[in-house]
Amino acid sequence: MSLSEFQLIDTIRNFQPNFSDDIEGIGDDAAIIPVGQQSFVITTDSLVENIHFKMEWASPFQIGRKSAAVNLSDIAAMGAQPFGLFLSISVPKTVDYCWIEQFILGIKTFGVPILGGDTTSSKDSLFINITAIGKVDNNSIKRRSTAKSGDDIYVTGTLGDSGAGLYILQNNLDPVGFQSLVEAHLNPSPQLKIGTELAELREVHSMMDISDGLAGDIHHILDQSGLSATIDCDKLPISESLRTFCNKYDLDPIRFALEAGEDYQLLFSAEKKKCLPLPCVKVGELYTGPGQVKFLNSPSPDYKYTGYTHF
Amino acid sequence: MSLSEFQLIDTIRNFQPNFSDDIEGIGDDAAIIPVGQQSFVITTDSLVENIHFKMEWASPFQIGRKSAAVNLSDIAAMGAQPFGLFLSISVPKTVDYCWIEQFILGIKTFGVPILGGDTTSSKDSLFINITAIGKVDNNSIKRRSTAKSGDDIYVTGTLGDSGAGLYILQNNLDPVGFQSLVEAHLNPSPQLKIGTELAELREVHSMMDISDGLAGDIHHILDQSGLSATIDCDKLPISESLRTFCNKYDLDPIRFALEAGEDYQLLFSAEKKKCLPLPCVKVGELYTGPGQVKFLNSPSPDYKYTGYTHF
Repeated sequence: MSLSEFQLIDTIRNFQPNFSDDIEGIGDDAAIIPVGQQSFVITTDSLVENIHFKMEWASPFQIGRKSAAVNLSDIAAMGAQPFGLFLSISVPKTVDYCWIEQFILGIKTFGVPILGGDTTSSKDSLFINITAIGKVDNNSIKRRSTAKSGDDIYVTGTLGDSGAGLYILQNNLDPVGFQSLVEAHLNPSPQLKIGTELAELREVHSMMDISDGLAGDIHHILDQSGLSATIDCDKLPISESLRTFCNKYDLDPIRFALEAGEDYQLLFSAEKKKCLPLPCVKVGELYTGPGQVKFLNSPSPDYKYTGYTHF
Repeated sequence: MSLSEFQLIDTIRNFQPNFSDDIEGIGDDAAIIPVGQQSFVITTDSLVENIHFKMEWASPFQIGRKSAAVNLSDIAAMGAQPFGLFLSISVPKTVDYCWIEQFILGIKTFGVPILGGDTTSSKDSLFINITAIGKVDNNSIKRRSTAKSGDDIYVTGTLGDSGAGLYILQNNLDPVGFQSLVEAHLNPSPQLKIGTELAELREVHSMMDISDGLAGDIHHILDQSGLSATIDCDKLPISESLRTFCNKYDLDPIRFALEAGEDYQLLFSAEKKKCLPLPCVKVGELYTGPGQVKFLNSPSPDYKYTGYTHF
């Protein structure tokens, strides 16, 4: 019997005592710990060799960079500024000092200091865990649970590139001409700048990052805000590279954009028909309903997203 | 080539930018983040299957309990009160839902809520990482770097029991009569209560927890405070069980007490000859010097501690 991430989170939640001090725990991209007029936000994410990365596909610098990026993306999703990382790694004997040096340089790409950590040995796989901490003004925090019926749904950039990059690596395809897709997979960038800019806009009601694909991740906002959504597949921002790639290999770019994940763009909802002073793309709308998503202009008329799980 | 924990910490330190906001990072049991009159302290520790625990030796409840305990021990060492944990686990397919439920119950033993986490799958071993966060009044924080020449050195309880428990498990010895030793290894308790009590005493100058053994860990205080020490081996608090056990198998209890680690007692220094209102045992003294330890009444006249490494 295997176990889904959602089952596990439910298990943890069921055993929780009540929090004190208005702390908000499991449920958003990061926990929220109020500290006066500001809050600290804290998140943790693991990357496991041969599950999240392969040593033959990525350099130690890239693995370090991505380990930081996926955590900082959660900080960005809260509209917060990161100020520290905690690094735990379990290192098999095959990994040498030079690898670690490059890996640490990768983590430091984003200029956020490592404040602590733990290093242990591992019998087989390399295991990386990073905990990131940031801060944000209390009235700028964007939660998943505060979307409003009638909101427009936006994303901050192209979707599906990372998934196509992974597809190229997994199927050992020729990357010539599609280097930007592989790059999107190996070197994702957390949307820290636009995250803090969106956080300051009152018309932005909810926000999260897209790590597992738009079609799956939107449900976190729907479930927690008690809403349904329409997503217009014609509006999804798809790069020219992804279109060319999908054309060549007879694949569907919409599926990559909806389902592939790891683009680490932000997904947010904002007051209807506001003209946002930022480069974002409207992809749908929210309405009162039981947590369903209607896909307009979908790849096939009966398209249904059947879910994503790490296991 | 393999890599020691200390090399790695140095590597991280060398690549650091300067911290802002008086944050103190790597070097103590936990990072210190000032928040007005108080500080948050944050620490992270991993437990890896077949390195730190074996599934056949410990129940899932015990593994969860110990995962929390080793982190909370670092919080105790700062004199802080824990208020949250972040849990990352990478779970192989052989682990089922019931295992996880028991594991979570174990983590929750100490009443500290899980505020967030990440779950991923793993190809082979089970990986656990916990990040713990606590708070403490700024003027109660006990650092490793603030010991003073002339201080007495204390520990908060018996040493060596956990190491003997591990020895019993590793060598498949009959545990009858020595259950308390095995118990000390599988179910260590973080010294949270006495940690906060010591934090309030002005005469206590430095503090840390003993995870890798007194003889090794004392060097963190010596190096950071610029001192040397004498440790009187006759004064080490050794349980009756450990003495009986060592008698039976012709082992040296002093070596267990000095070198074995994982007792998670607190090690601290306090003003000379103060009568502390707490149940602690004086084991030595600090003096100005180049970071050396002189062992009085040591197991052998030429006894030298040759170091401990995870790798």
